[in-house]
Amino acid sequence: MKIVIAPDSFKGSLTAPQAAQAIERGIHNAFPAAVTVIVPMADGGEGSLEPIVHSAGGTFVGCTVQGPLGTSVDAAYGMLSRDKTAVIEMARASGLLLVSPAERNPMLTSTYGTGELIRHALDQGCRRFILALGGSATNDGGAGMLEALGMSFYDASGDVIHSAGGNLGRIAVIDDTGFDSRIAESDFLIACDVNNPLLGASGASAVYAPQKGASPGDIERLEQNMHHWADLIEAKMGLRLHDYPGAGAAGGLAGAFLALFPSRLRPGIEVVIASTGLRDHLSGAALVITGEGRIDAQTASGKAPLGVAREAKSLGIPVIALAGAVGPHLDALYEDGISCAFSIVNAPMTLEEAMSRASELLEHAAEQAVRAFLAGR
Amino acid sequence: MKIVIAPDSFKGSLTAPQAAQAIERGIHNAFPAAVTVIVPMADGGEGSLEPIVHSAGGTFVGCTVQGPLGTSVDAAYGMLSRDKTAVIEMARASGLLLVSPAERNPMLTSTYGTGELIRHALDQGCRRFILALGGSATNDGGAGMLEALGMSFYDASGDVIHSAGGNLGRIAVIDDTGFDSRIAESDFLIACDVNNPLLGASGASAVYAPQKGASPGDIERLEQNMHHWADLIEAKMGLRLHDYPGAGAAGGLAGAFLALFPSRLRPGIEVVIASTGLRDHLSGAALVITGEGRIDAQTASGKAPLGVAREAKSLGIPVIALAGAVGPHLDALYEDGISCAFSIVNAPMTLEEAMSRASELLEHAAEQAVRAFLAGR
Repeated sequence: MKIVIAPDSFKGSLTAPQAAQAIERGIHNAFPAAVTVIVPMADGGEGSLEPIVHSAGGTFVGCTVQGPLGTSVDAAYGMLSRDKTAVIEMARASGLLLVSPAERNPMLTSTYGTGELIRHALDQGCRRFILALGGSATNDGGAGMLEALGMSFYDASGDVIHSAGGNLGRIAVIDDTGFDSRIAESDFLIACDVNNPLLGASGASAVYAPQKGASPGDIERLEQNMHHWADLIEAKMGLRLHDYPGAGAAGGLAGAFLALFPSRLRPGIEVVIASTGLRDHLSGAALVITGEGRIDAQTASGKAPLGVAREAKSLGIPVIALAGAVGPHLDALYEDGISCAFSIVNAPMTLEEAMSRASELLEHAAEQAVRAFLAGR
Repeated sequence: MKIVIAPDSFKGSLTAPQAAQAIERGIHNAFPAAVTVIVPMADGGEGSLEPIVHSAGGTFVGCTVQGPLGTSVDAAYGMLSRDKTAVIEMARASGLLLVSPAERNPMLTSTYGTGELIRHALDQGCRRFILALGGSATNDGGAGMLEALGMSFYDASGDVIHSAGGNLGRIAVIDDTGFDSRIAESDFLIACDVNNPLLGASGASAVYAPQKGASPGDIERLEQNMHHWADLIEAKMGLRLHDYPGAGAAGGLAGAFLALFPSRLRPGIEVVIASTGLRDHLSGAALVITGEGRIDAQTASGKAPLGVAREAKSLGIPVIALAGAVGPHLDALYEDGISCAFSIVNAPMTLEEAMSRASELLEHAAEQAVRAFLAGR
């Protein structure tokens, strides 16, 4: 019997591969002869690099780049053996967690490092890219990335402007003569779960800049700068990002992809499922086990277990979900293919205990769930 | 699909029938067309009356009797519609919980009330009896019960001795001329899970009298008295209870049954299973759901879920166990027929929360477990 193991991470306690291994042990406790296939999942946002590379079969490529504030960061991207697809998680180069809380300031931060990762992958011969957004420290409209890939920005006096959220307003000229020509030969699949436009009350600056360290005054300035940037892009490319759904993702980085790259925005879980080859792995499986930290009626449709479940449902394969906490009223999840959901918590205990014992508890829960499944056969 | 629901109580939160109802709701949430049969379980000790009467189909007969200290107690016994079997839980008449902690004293307590319950049932025409021991307040060797059924005890001067643990030593003569003759026409099935003999270091007085309120000096006196009583019984009936396994149960009450009644001692769960007709109910079932407060590797073989599981296993029916807390390393339970065990706790929470929400959590756990089982079909 083939069982596919496709959990997301259990945030704060287990990465997706660790969770998968615990589940695998539990399955083998229940049924030593089971053939298990581990396909760690992610939601396409921050933290998606490792599961995708693990599931799809690939290697990590180390690469030192400029962090959000310009200092060096040891980043990495993934290269899938299948057609040299580069998997780039923008947060590895331009993420909020790379900046100490006191230094977080989207007026100063730049996506330059993300551009360096892309350039490095282009140099390695990659022409297919998967981009995981989420967790960015930036609000620069992707100008930093463009700069790293050869664009230049000048003010009205002809002086060079280095990209950062606070500088966008001073840009008078975008010079793309040096823009890396390999971009046009490439394909960028952008995992993006937000619909925020670039500007306005639900735009990048208003919604996300505060959590990146912007003061109320900064936010107003960032919004003005981004408006100016959107106008420049519109004048140059004819694409109006101002209200474009999703353009506001990752501080407007998504907008730059939309305007200047051969790219598509897709829901994160869809990108992950496609890139990991989950559907191929599901072929012939009798059961799928997925999971993550919490599963309840509010579990957003973008979450990994639901994406896994929908895929399995289309193939008629039952899905057991395991989670640290399971909410009541799961009818909507059943509709999407979740057969049942069990908490890993096997007795009254604190959240701290559940998190510190997550691996052991998950193994035990998987064993019991598989035993229940087998009892029905 | 027929599903048998046979849980023990979840001590402190749900009686066995309440637990069964919660499980039934969960089953029907998962599978509205399921045919459910509720057979509440017990372990044959204190608290077994209600589940047996509920499962076997019977009525409760109210009966005011003397409590352990002689004051009136509103007790009850069960009468099963099938052949008028009387189900008597000795703790309803002679239980420790009927005496306030300050008044607990096995020198003074008597099983007289238990004898009254038997007499009442005999008057109703009952000739088959099931006795649940456990939870007794007494250490009178069953002398009180015998007195209520017509025996008389006299001291060396010919004065009447009323039975109590502290008085046994003064009995010189047992007069059984008034002993209820209907006893000999009856059959007594005694549910008993302890092997303690009447006397000695593992006897009734040494092991159980302390928790019934005896001081160290009392214990020595109770042991001497019980020895005297055992000698009297041996002289009269030829049966040596001194070392007889199980004779020490319920303060020696079991010994009186052994010596003077047509009786058999059987493991409590075996008695419960036989009396509830569980095996008949299991016929044609696709699944059994059992449960109790805690299930782990130390779950004694006398516990209800294991008894249920063994019975189901012999018929090839899978068993799902649900518990407030589920321990690790359940291999021994699998051997006995437990297919899998799930905690009702579905997120980190305190014991208090789990107990106060037990009904809702049990319903949810039953739903998920049945869904997992169905996923395997």
